Amino acid sequence: MALVVEKTTSGREYKVKDMSQADFGRLEIELAEVEMPGLMACRTEFGPQQPFKGARITGSLHMTIQTAVLIESLTALGAEVRWCSCNIFSTQDHAAAAIARDSAAVFAWKGETLQEYWWCTERALDWGPGGGPDLIVDDGGDATLLIHEGVKAEEEYERSGKLPDPASTDNAEFQIVLGIIKEGLSVDPCKYRKMKERLVGVSEETTTGVKRLYQMQANGTLLFPAINVNDSVTKSKFDNLYGCRHSLPDGLMRATDIMIAGKVAVVCGYGDVGKGCAAALKQAGAQVIVTEIDPICALQALMEGIPVLTLEDVVSKADIFVTTTGNKDIVMVHHMKQMKNNAIVCNIGHFDNEIDMLGLETYPGVKRITIKPQTDRWVFPETNSGIIILAEGRLMNLGCATGHPSFVMSCSFTNQVIAQLELWKEKATCKYEKKVYVLPKHLDEKVAALHLGKLGAKLTKLSPEQAAYINVPVEGPYKPTHYRY
Amino acid sequence: MALVVEKTTSGREYKVKDMSQADFGRLEIELAEVEMPGLMACRTEFGPQQPFKGARITGSLHMTIQTAVLIESLTALGAEVRWCSCNIFSTQDHAAAAIARDSAAVFAWKGETLQEYWWCTERALDWGPGGGPDLIVDDGGDATLLIHEGVKAEEEYERSGKLPDPASTDNAEFQIVLGIIKEGLSVDPCKYRKMKERLVGVSEETTTGVKRLYQMQANGTLLFPAINVNDSVTKSKFDNLYGCRHSLPDGLMRATDIMIAGKVAVVCGYGDVGKGCAAALKQAGAQVIVTEIDPICALQALMEGIPVLTLEDVVSKADIFVTTTGNKDIVMVHHMKQMKNNAIVCNIGHFDNEIDMLGLETYPGVKRITIKPQTDRWVFPETNSGIIILAEGRLMNLGCATGHPSFVMSCSFTNQVIAQLELWKEKATCKYEKKVYVLPKHLDEKVAALHLGKLGAKLTKLSPEQAAYINVPVEGPYKPTHYRY
Amino acid sequence: MALVVEKTTSGREYKVKDMSQADFGRLEIELAEVEMPGLMACRTEFGPQQPFKGARITGSLHMTIQTAVLIESLTALGAEVRWCSCNIFSTQDHAAAAIARDSAAVFAWKGETLQEYWWCTERALDWGPGGGPDLIVDDGGDATLLIHEGVKAEEEYERSGKLPDPASTDNAEFQIVLGIIKEGLSVDPCKYRKMKERLVGVSEETTTGVKRLYQMQANGTLLFPAINVNDSVTKSKFDNLYGCRHSLPDGLMRATDIMIAGKVAVVCGYGDVGKGCAAALKQAGAQVIVTEIDPICALQALMEGIPVLTLEDVVSKADIFVTTTGNKDIVMVHHMKQMKNNAIVCNIGHFDNEIDMLGLETYPGVKRITIKPQTDRWVFPETNSGIIILAEGRLMNLGCATGHPSFVMSCSFTNQVIAQLELWKEKATCKYEKKVYVLPKHLDEKVAALHLGKLGAKLTKLSPEQAAYINVPVEGPYKPTHYRY
Amino acid sequence: MALVVEKTTSGREYKVKDMSQADFGRLEIELAEVEMPGLMACRTEFGPQQPFKGARITGSLHMTIQTAVLIESLTALGAEVRWCSCNIFSTQDHAAAAIARDSAAVFAWKGETLQEYWWCTERALDWGPGGGPDLIVDDGGDATLLIHEGVKAEEEYERSGKLPDPASTDNAEFQIVLGIIKEGLSVDPCKYRKMKERLVGVSEETTTGVKRLYQMQANGTLLFPAINVNDSVTKSKFDNLYGCRHSLPDGLMRATDIMIAGKVAVVCGYGDVGKGCAAALKQAGAQVIVTEIDPICALQALMEGIPVLTLEDVVSKADIFVTTTGNKDIVMVHHMKQMKNNAIVCNIGHFDNEIDMLGLETYPGVKRITIKPQTDRWVFPETNSGIIILAEGRLMNLGCATGHPSFVMSCSFTNQVIAQLELWKEKATCKYEKKVYVLPKHLDEKVAALHLGKLGAKLTKLSPEQAAYINVPVEGPYKPTHYRY
Repeated sequence: MALVVEKTTSGREYKVKDMSQADFGRLEIELAEVEMPGLMACRTEFGPQQPFKGARITGSLHMTIQTAVLIESLTALGAEVRWCSCNIFSTQDHAAAAIARDSAAVFAWKGETLQEYWWCTERALDWGPGGGPDLIVDDGGDATLLIHEGVKAEEEYERSGKLPDPASTDNAEFQIVLGIIKEGLSVDPCKYRKMKERLVGVSEETTTGVKRLYQMQANGTLLFPAINVNDSVTKSKFDNLYGCRHSLPDGLMRATDIMIAGKVAVVCGYGDVGKGCAAALKQAGAQVIVTEIDPICALQALMEGIPVLTLEDVVSKADIFVTTTGNKDIVMVHHMKQMKNNAIVCNIGHFDNEIDMLGLETYPGVKRITIKPQTDRWVFPETNSGIIILAEGRLMNLGCATGHPSFVMSCSFTNQVIAQLELWKEKATCKYEKKVYVLPKHLDEKVAALHLGKLGAKLTKLSPEQAAYINVPVEGPYKPTHYRY
Repeated sequence: MALVVEKTTSGREYKVKDMSQADFGRLEIELAEVEMPGLMACRTEFGPQQPFKGARITGSLHMTIQTAVLIESLTALGAEVRWCSCNIFSTQDHAAAAIARDSAAVFAWKGETLQEYWWCTERALDWGPGGGPDLIVDDGGDATLLIHEGVKAEEEYERSGKLPDPASTDNAEFQIVLGIIKEGLSVDPCKYRKMKERLVGVSEETTTGVKRLYQMQANGTLLFPAINVNDSVTKSKFDNLYGCRHSLPDGLMRATDIMIAGKVAVVCGYGDVGKGCAAALKQAGAQVIVTEIDPICALQALMEGIPVLTLEDVVSKADIFVTTTGNKDIVMVHHMKQMKNNAIVCNIGHFDNEIDMLGLETYPGVKRITIKPQTDRWVFPETNSGIIILAEGRLMNLGCATGHPSFVMSCSFTNQVIAQLELWKEKATCKYEKKVYVLPKHLDEKVAALHLGKLGAKLTKLSPEQAAYINVPVEGPYKPTHYRY
Repeated sequence: MALVVEKTTSGREYKVKDMSQADFGRLEIELAEVEMPGLMACRTEFGPQQPFKGARITGSLHMTIQTAVLIESLTALGAEVRWCSCNIFSTQDHAAAAIARDSAAVFAWKGETLQEYWWCTERALDWGPGGGPDLIVDDGGDATLLIHEGVKAEEEYERSGKLPDPASTDNAEFQIVLGIIKEGLSVDPCKYRKMKERLVGVSEETTTGVKRLYQMQANGTLLFPAINVNDSVTKSKFDNLYGCRHSLPDGLMRATDIMIAGKVAVVCGYGDVGKGCAAALKQAGAQVIVTEIDPICALQALMEGIPVLTLEDVVSKADIFVTTTGNKDIVMVHHMKQMKNNAIVCNIGHFDNEIDMLGLETYPGVKRITIKPQTDRWVFPETNSGIIILAEGRLMNLGCATGHPSFVMSCSFTNQVIAQLELWKEKATCKYEKKVYVLPKHLDEKVAALHLGKLGAKLTKLSPEQAAYINVPVEGPYKPTHYRY
Repeated sequence: MALVVEKTTSGREYKVKDMSQADFGRLEIELAEVEMPGLMACRTEFGPQQPFKGARITGSLHMTIQTAVLIESLTALGAEVRWCSCNIFSTQDHAAAAIARDSAAVFAWKGETLQEYWWCTERALDWGPGGGPDLIVDDGGDATLLIHEGVKAEEEYERSGKLPDPASTDNAEFQIVLGIIKEGLSVDPCKYRKMKERLVGVSEETTTGVKRLYQMQANGTLLFPAINVNDSVTKSKFDNLYGCRHSLPDGLMRATDIMIAGKVAVVCGYGDVGKGCAAALKQAGAQVIVTEIDPICALQALMEGIPVLTLEDVVSKADIFVTTTGNKDIVMVHHMKQMKNNAIVCNIGHFDNEIDMLGLETYPGVKRITIKPQTDRWVFPETNSGIIILAEGRLMNLGCATGHPSFVMSCSFTNQVIAQLELWKEKATCKYEKKVYVLPKHLDEKVAALHLGKLGAKLTKLSPEQAAYINVPVEGPYKPTHYRY
């Protein structure tokens, strides 16, 4: 696609695949609203006060139908919003169209190139002359990364006159990032520093993004406050676990139509994501095997009747491989060569480097047969035997299906809204330093409470005597901080 | 679509949606072959002898990728094949295109009107001057029905000169059937009787179709031998059960992206299909409730922890309704009016009359909003509250997803191939009368055995002493006929 | 125990372990009555007419609390009853005491020797001068066997003057049977033939016993009508499946307190009993592996995510071995030698010859350490490594726990009562020949229906239109005979 | 029992039920050792150094077979040990006998009165003239409580001359505690203060005990350091969860033989214990309903398909009630009156005050019928309808069965050993203040690692590059402190 920003009749910028899908998007957004009680409750509770009046929010987060409901919750509370996706395959084009037409500046489409991806990110951060956004909603940390790298480059440039050099790295994606920053520097050598100045904070919702933030906090390089939404219980123990339990089989079925029952499936990693995936596969009738580095998680798998072995033990016997580790180099090309014909290899954990895509792409004589978008059969020349790679090694639930369902995303996104409200409310105080924070437990409990009614649940109320007996307030929070759920 | 038969360069007739999808269909057929060991084993075992040499086979069975592998198994054994789908929404257009281009005469596309549907069925049965097919592969019994109704009409016409009168029935679909027969009569008043004469037999694979056959047998009106493939253990206890366990959530997710976890789901009927659906929903985290008429099936549900209630008890509390009964008038429009907003109503059992589509369509003031094909929201004027109907009340796994996965269909279809072989082999003998037969148990066991290797299973062998002890042959069959599995 | 018959004050014979446990037995019988709605409904429905007035019923069936409720249902309907257990370890002594004191002649205690066992059986069949019982309630077929062997011996003796020779067989138990018959012959050479003459029929409730009956029917040696209660759906698909799902872990836990989660468990056989055992172990968190001879059952296991391998493949890796085959020679001593230290070996399928107890007992240098009754550790001299054998290789759920729970036994036993009523009602007609019969489906459905209310279930009623549509009576039966549930 | 201390031939004190059961206890201890790899690994790793040389350890913890292996692990590491149970019903008498005979001073038997219970506790703390123990292994905190109350009373007495007054409290059990302290004061007014002086610290393993410790820490009244073993992941997420998943059905089955399948079961509380119980009941085929005060736990239940309602909603429909809350007044006598006849009420969470035993016992006209020890039927006079109370409202898995199985207790107890080692090692340093500590994560991971081999698991090893990528040491710990597993 030609990278030219378009404008709505009202003058709002956007770049999406097909504006004619906006009506379809709107219909699905309306369905999703019914499934997202937490977000709708925020609109009801906070909408009248317009707390985000005057706030500019940039989001870098899969541009799906669910995200559309998040975006319109932010605008319903008074915010102006610009948005990009955080994954080249995760945009639902009808969602992007509806939002672009009706609510916010969107730069996202399914199947971006990496160059396009970072262009979109940069567009979403660019609020024109007045600097960048006040707040960032981040997923995976790419918006945060761009600002940090931008500031670093600007400071280096100011210090030494040295421009960032894409050739300084092997990482193809990072080359693009440096290229974009380099280009920006020539236009405005203070661009990212102005962003940093204006920025009140970021709320981040993935394990991977949070890990980056804690590392920056540890290194003292974090440039603004961050709220770790991922570690709200109502996020990590719901979205990561139950979301993946839903969307892993969804992705497998849409991409390959394979019968899961009877198959041998290997889940690499038994954290929250791995637990959800293993549960889904087991329930669908697969023989599941887990690989783990952490003895505690390994023992949990065993208690559920799931053997824990190494990838080497099972690589030639399994039919389905799922990476959920948040680490790199999990399934290597030498593993893939040993797999059964048409073994399925996919990633639902993290970046595409969980799977050795580079090793596969550069394997001498390998042949790629695209069955359909995001479903490729790769054939090794020695054996003429193929494996199926989903979503080019990227998140398969977003690449091959539609990501997590609305209800569980409502939990995650209600945390996002609450975190954004909190950052914005405290913008003038010193409450939040350049550190990573989690939301207090009573807000976590509130997010959960907002989702019970939709499912017909009724809570029991503590009597004052009972509350005193266990030493908690009648209205909560009910658990100590270290409680694990 | 204009109902005009097209021809391949080789002169084979077809009518499909889009011939350009043939390559995509071929790629998916190749994937499916790896998942269908029973069919591929038939090709290996029987292919060299070409047992179907000279046989004309007509199939009326969902024109999917899996069916494509079945068709090419029949042609690999020497048959000539004509095919139509047995459901207006179940065709996968890329599968139809690949088969039409490469292997057989196909008349099928996704989204046929009823008029088109019966045109396709009639085309598939029409082998030109020499009469009809030698064999029929049937699913639901529509091809069988057309011949029986045709013969009845011809006999009546011969007797009384009376043509069939579409106006004699309220049933819209049956009006079309009578219309087609009426039209045919004017061209050739012996057409269906010639078909009947030539026909060696039919193999039928659904509960519904089999029920029709047993009724005709009981009435003495069955015109040719039939093999009941549905009641092979390797069909009804696999396809119906495990197939639906897979494809029900697949259909739900593709059509609505709804989170199943936490929802209240009602499964009407707890036969094999209902058991599969209930298991899938329960495992996905729904609260499942079953409705049943049969106390034995009801007690089975209870033993699995599933409450058995009436639809009236739960109609206003549930989020998802699935009909699996094989009966009619299960979810009526008066039920639908009481449902929660955006409750999902779908059918995976039988014809669209499990759900009162007629009542819904004719409800005064009702509004239909098509979210996307096969996903409609119907809004009642009194409440402005809507329900979601999948696949217009027809089989939702085929209408909204891709039907059952290859592996389990390989079990069903291997039974079909074996049944067809058996009918054809005995065509000149009196082995099969105008009755309904099931396959002998050793063939049922053989079908199962052909599917074990793919899943890495190893059977234990009986010693002669053990075989004598339990009084079975060492090589099986291992169970008495009445054994229920 | 000295084998001397005792008498109650009312003159009824008995031989039990400890009459002082009668009160305890009575309390548990009262609890069980609440859990056995089918039997209690029979008392209500049939009690007033006293249909068994004048009938002598002998039962050979585990003398448990549940059986006590069965016995008192028979006496409540007018029968006189004599009873023995059908397994040396299965008697609950408090149940035996309560029944002996209050209701029927009982000859049973936990931990009989084989000699005592057959003495009890013979006592239960001996109704004094007037011949034997009118009806037999059998489980495993030992009462039936004794009569058949007795008649055979008497005929041989009459023919040739030859007495049965215990030395003619290697089978230790059969030697005892022959000894008892031999002894009887010297007292009354027509004893078993008189029994046969009087006997109206037997109802048999196990797979093993039924298999014997069908073999006798096939050989033409069956001496009286038999009703196969095992193959009522409400028996084999409930007792065998859900009963074992409950009582297998119960037996394991009471005998060994072992944690099932995390263990590797091998289930030999995947019939109804095996399915129940595998489900229980899987749900408790074990890694389950199945061995099978039947490819259909094997494929069912695979569809549930359970690998199917041979015993040899896993013998050295598994922690728990359960035999459920109904065959002999499943786990041999050479297998046991290869097992891990303290591997548990138990049988829930059939006789103790599923496990090679003879091979184990006669293994040179093997050492038996009784941990507690029915839990033995056997240590091999070569390795000093031991295995744990439960219930000496006999049914572990009855030997180590209390057998199946009341509710599911109510289903089985209601079938028994209905079968006994049917045999007795037709005693003077020719309805039942010397063949094996199953109960008609409407009675099977009735048994199920009697158990729904207790679990709060509500059935849906067919409308006449619906009944006509699927061609069944409104009030059932609802399924064809071949339906598998 | 007469409360007289007995002595072994070697002069070690004890008081147990029946010393003749020592051999049986020893056999079961030997079985348990094979199932407790963590404890056995501690013996191997630390035994040679005898780290506990000179240490006196008092334990107040269910005197079961598993605890016996713990005690002998402490003695194998050089400790002298005195022990009592922490629950009047939880002692296994054969375990107590074996330990009393072979290894440590034991004061415990199944079925103590409360008076006897506190006598035993006091005996276990009394090491003679030299003061009390060096270390305490606590479960529920009763040993810790006695010392704290003792010290408080001694200080009050010193200050004011006032003796503790049992009449000052309504709580029957606390009256006994005050009585014992009062008696002790007259003998030695410094007894508990001397204990406190000597005491190095306590390790506590229950949620309830830990809660007490944190409250004392908050109040500033904690007298010595405490290690919170309960919140080791390898304790709370294993013992509490998987232990109860095993031992709840075990207790139900041993106490009542009830069929769980088909029943409606209410689990009050969905913490770790409640999660384990709900999972067990669901898997056994019950319809499970949860009650909760915490919206997050409630939402977790919903995601597993379990409805969340209040006790009032379901009290008259359920068959089984299980309390797991760690709070008081959960099932009150007014609830019990509304229950179905023979509904089962039991507690697996905490003290017997989760169930309103006092209300039940004092209900006018109520009748208690003891079916067998720890299984009572209580009949209300108005309805003549009864409910079944297990273990008199105390922990039913310990009262009615044998508690958690060895393997999971090995995880908990290995934490105990490691905590004791840590306290003892640091006794002379200032590392531990009068506060509550948890074990560091690397020790938690170590406990898990020690249990993998037994289950055949193989861990994957991080490469240095991978470790660097996710910023953890190659050898762990692998997760941040806030990680929830």
